[in-house]
Amino acid sequence: MKKIQADYLAALRKLMAEQGIHTVIISGTDPHQSENPPAHWRDREWLTGFWSTNGTNGTAVVTPDEALCWTDSRYFLQATEQLEGTGFKMMEEDGPNAVNLIDWVTEHTPADQTVAIDGTTFSISQAQRMQQEFTDNQIKFVTDFTPFDTINPSRPTTPKNKLFVHDEAIVGESVDSKIARILEEVKGELANAVLLSSLDDIAWATNVRTAGDILFSPVFVSYLYLSPEERVLFVDADKVSEEVKKHLEKYNIVQKPYESVFDFVSRLPKETRLLIDPEKTSRTLYDRMDCTPVFGGSGIAKLKSIKNEQMLASLDKAMEKDGVALTRFFMMVEKEAPSGKLTELGLAQALRAERLKDPDCVDESFSSIIGWNGNGAIVHYEPTEESSMTIEGNGLLLVDSGGQYKLGTTDITRTIAIGTPTDEMKHDFTLVMKGHIALANAIFPEGTTGHQLDVLARQFLWAEGKAYFHGTGHGVGFFINCHEGPQSIRLNYVPTPLQPGMITSDEPGLYLEGRYGIRCENLIETVPAMQTEFGRFLRFRVATLFPFDLRLFEPAIMTDEEIKWLNDYHALVRSRLTPLLNADEAAWLAEKTQPLTR
Amino acid sequence: MKKIQADYLAALRKLMAEQGIHTVIISGTDPHQSENPPAHWRDREWLTGFWSTNGTNGTAVVTPDEALCWTDSRYFLQATEQLEGTGFKMMEEDGPNAVNLIDWVTEHTPADQTVAIDGTTFSISQAQRMQQEFTDNQIKFVTDFTPFDTINPSRPTTPKNKLFVHDEAIVGESVDSKIARILEEVKGELANAVLLSSLDDIAWATNVRTAGDILFSPVFVSYLYLSPEERVLFVDADKVSEEVKKHLEKYNIVQKPYESVFDFVSRLPKETRLLIDPEKTSRTLYDRMDCTPVFGGSGIAKLKSIKNEQMLASLDKAMEKDGVALTRFFMMVEKEAPSGKLTELGLAQALRAERLKDPDCVDESFSSIIGWNGNGAIVHYEPTEESSMTIEGNGLLLVDSGGQYKLGTTDITRTIAIGTPTDEMKHDFTLVMKGHIALANAIFPEGTTGHQLDVLARQFLWAEGKAYFHGTGHGVGFFINCHEGPQSIRLNYVPTPLQPGMITSDEPGLYLEGRYGIRCENLIETVPAMQTEFGRFLRFRVATLFPFDLRLFEPAIMTDEEIKWLNDYHALVRSRLTPLLNADEAAWLAEKTQPLTR
Repeated sequence: MKKIQADYLAALRKLMAEQGIHTVIISGTDPHQSENPPAHWRDREWLTGFWSTNGTNGTAVVTPDEALCWTDSRYFLQATEQLEGTGFKMMEEDGPNAVNLIDWVTEHTPADQTVAIDGTTFSISQAQRMQQEFTDNQIKFVTDFTPFDTINPSRPTTPKNKLFVHDEAIVGESVDSKIARILEEVKGELANAVLLSSLDDIAWATNVRTAGDILFSPVFVSYLYLSPEERVLFVDADKVSEEVKKHLEKYNIVQKPYESVFDFVSRLPKETRLLIDPEKTSRTLYDRMDCTPVFGGSGIAKLKSIKNEQMLASLDKAMEKDGVALTRFFMMVEKEAPSGKLTELGLAQALRAERLKDPDCVDESFSSIIGWNGNGAIVHYEPTEESSMTIEGNGLLLVDSGGQYKLGTTDITRTIAIGTPTDEMKHDFTLVMKGHIALANAIFPEGTTGHQLDVLARQFLWAEGKAYFHGTGHGVGFFINCHEGPQSIRLNYVPTPLQPGMITSDEPGLYLEGRYGIRCENLIETVPAMQTEFGRFLRFRVATLFPFDLRLFEPAIMTDEEIKWLNDYHALVRSRLTPLLNADEAAWLAEKTQPLTR
Repeated sequence: MKKIQADYLAALRKLMAEQGIHTVIISGTDPHQSENPPAHWRDREWLTGFWSTNGTNGTAVVTPDEALCWTDSRYFLQATEQLEGTGFKMMEEDGPNAVNLIDWVTEHTPADQTVAIDGTTFSISQAQRMQQEFTDNQIKFVTDFTPFDTINPSRPTTPKNKLFVHDEAIVGESVDSKIARILEEVKGELANAVLLSSLDDIAWATNVRTAGDILFSPVFVSYLYLSPEERVLFVDADKVSEEVKKHLEKYNIVQKPYESVFDFVSRLPKETRLLIDPEKTSRTLYDRMDCTPVFGGSGIAKLKSIKNEQMLASLDKAMEKDGVALTRFFMMVEKEAPSGKLTELGLAQALRAERLKDPDCVDESFSSIIGWNGNGAIVHYEPTEESSMTIEGNGLLLVDSGGQYKLGTTDITRTIAIGTPTDEMKHDFTLVMKGHIALANAIFPEGTTGHQLDVLARQFLWAEGKAYFHGTGHGVGFFINCHEGPQSIRLNYVPTPLQPGMITSDEPGLYLEGRYGIRCENLIETVPAMQTEFGRFLRFRVATLFPFDLRLFEPAIMTDEEIKWLNDYHALVRSRLTPLLNADEAAWLAEKTQPLTR
């Protein structure tokens, strides 16, 4: 059962002993705090053997006697399985058996001994929390321990994917305009320059993208320094195409090598009040700074969340392309399902292939969740070679997927019947849809936040003692990250109001363990509704274009208003997609978008 | 136009000059931070001439050149009017023209000069905020300036109302049990004793009440010290009846003079870790302490909010008594309205008299809000000699009132039609009722807080661009304060979940300036609903018993479920109240609780 991880572990411990290090803490992410880091920085993964496609969360700790890997409850089952025989033991980050990593390290490192981290992969805040606790307990702390190239000679290089310009005709705003708006925010924080580490912020600010640096997101590995006098993009030269070189020159952005950012910040004068986000900026960058750091957010999250008219018009086209791909995919599913040969993994591959047929689609926006019956009830499920089920008999198929189109990012979930659904399935599906519709139909005063609307999507399930335990909606990026803040729709407190131009998901669900899962997800745009003596009111406009499965509704428990919403939506889907389909496809869609009647 | 305030002001300034005080800040409340302080502490009121029955909020500042009175937006109109000719100028505490009091004082007091307060009437937190700002600006700060007896020889004394015991058969819990639970909370805060200043906490802990100390609340002026070794109630001896004396002896509570609390805390040894709430405890008490203060809440708010079975059964009886009084009152209104002679103030007096006919009713729970048409649209309206309108013609009458019964506190709002209501009135009333019913009918998982449910009450108004700008529900005390925490139902974040045994109001409304106001309020009890594979679910049980005006519904916009809720509720009201009514009253109620049909 011995895995290669035992060799890595032995090599790491040898290095630690040589350098007088008692305990090492190994990050699961990169210098940009990415959810899905490039292969180069997946050190925690190859070291421990615990990995996952759809984002990952895990931090390893190694001492002379112990090797541990912390992760959260989404990954308990998977990590336990994958860590078997590696020498690493799983530790629970949340839930009733949670152990605090910093507390554990403090208890298991003798006073006067040393704890080490690679400070490039921990944020200032994370490292600060460690340092405080360790110092209080007379434990030494070093932040420049970088053993990974030594112990793994086949460690992947940093990504070398070519960059391209995200067309201003799609984006609707020049880089000059964006930088001006960012520098306004910087001024508001009483700083005179900003260093961006977060890759989605940099992609948004520069109108530059790539494919492949980060799984499922077109952002690229870099840093960006902005001040009224100077604009510097730190990025590997071999990634920069002629087109991007000209683009950067046009906007007076100087290009410097990626690694030179450390030298650059060390030379900034004391007078530079440099805005850095302590949650996103690495401890090593902070260690090198001699200027005056100002801790705060860059404000880009807020700017980025509000899409302009050009982006919204582009997104409508992306939604049409996505609707066409989904039509072809679900037609195939319907045709092939009776064969009993379809598998979850096969469908995931087929859906990916269908989307990528469109040259505008650069990638999926996350690894598709295709869950048949019991697998559909696992909220963060993603089919693998081992788990993939064959679609046979009767039941529900949950398909949650999305595309990274240059015209915008999509994210849609449909739950469809295969064979004959039970009355219970139809009832539960209809409860979920009633919530979905109540949220989509909501009208609310300006200033309303997501926690104030969330219950609309849950009320019908709750009335029958049913519930789902995830948020109802997340913000969605525009050809950047599929999940982005600052708005969201959930039960817990959300400080950011929903504003016109924001794109958010509407995705209530229901999960019956071992039986079936239901989720119904559209993306919705916040738009003005009306102005009255009580102020300005907002509402949602549905952006996603694909029908819900008519075979799964129980019209008897729906109101006239709900049935009207569904029929109006289906009429919209039909009118927008039909011109893009062939005759067979159009006929199939016409059938799928017939009016629902009692 | 010169009012008596000018004399007070001159006397105050003379005293200030004599004692070398440049600026004085005068509190609007008492040593217990009561919303409605006893007359003795209404110094800010007689000094400035600004007063109000339903709670008051105002802080005065006097310098050699200026005399100002800060208040919040609920009182801008009233304070401006009342301050005219007094020498005092109104300052706005909130809204767009807000001026921060501490900032103003800091700016207008020269360095090395002195700001003075009477530290008995400011909390530790309030005084701390002042001290910090003043010290930073080299301004001296004294906290023992008590000029009020000198400048107003006819200053009222402290209240001398007799105490009585709140029967354990009603309360359902002995004082020993309550004190044991409080001391558990104290232990949880790592303290070994607690000093309670908040009058509702003391009334709850001792099962003792009075009438008259505080307007609309049966609490009594006192302090309570509790430790595992000692229980001391600081209260004026002439308030203590034989019954209460025995009650205190039974529970080993030593009685000491009210004012001796200052001496008592000054003698507590250093080892006493005394839990005090910095928001409720006076600065002077803190100044006198030599023991170790522990800042924190006593936990009583949480204990107090959950009513036991005995209290809930008692409250049901109070609701029946209240329903009977309301039946008699509204029958009279209906009979007399056509005369065109009813006035808001007359109705307020009549309603008070009707409630107080029941010997169990000690007082109203707040000053009745009786608003005819335009006055009903003023949210914090209370009729006065000057404002009181005559009820003539057609329109809506809003009646918000409650009683302090020994069996429990009530709070109910009904809006009724006088003459013929317009279609618009009926439509708006029905929208409010749809929200009221949606909240009353909600089922929700254990752990749900008020901010997660609030939108249920607003959704139908919002859908038409209408809104109200107050919370939907507040916690209600049990023969204590009509408003109490910690739970509430509102749009803003609420940390405390709704729990079985909590009593909360359900009171959405709509206010059309100068035209009419609508509010529909019942008290609702949180009760268990069901246990499923998704956990425990809760719901509400309506406690209040009085019909809504059937003439104001627009059945066409109501669902079958909403109509059923109303008819079931009316059937309940009829069955519970009829046995307590005479034949005429029963006939009237039967008509008012007929089933609503389309």
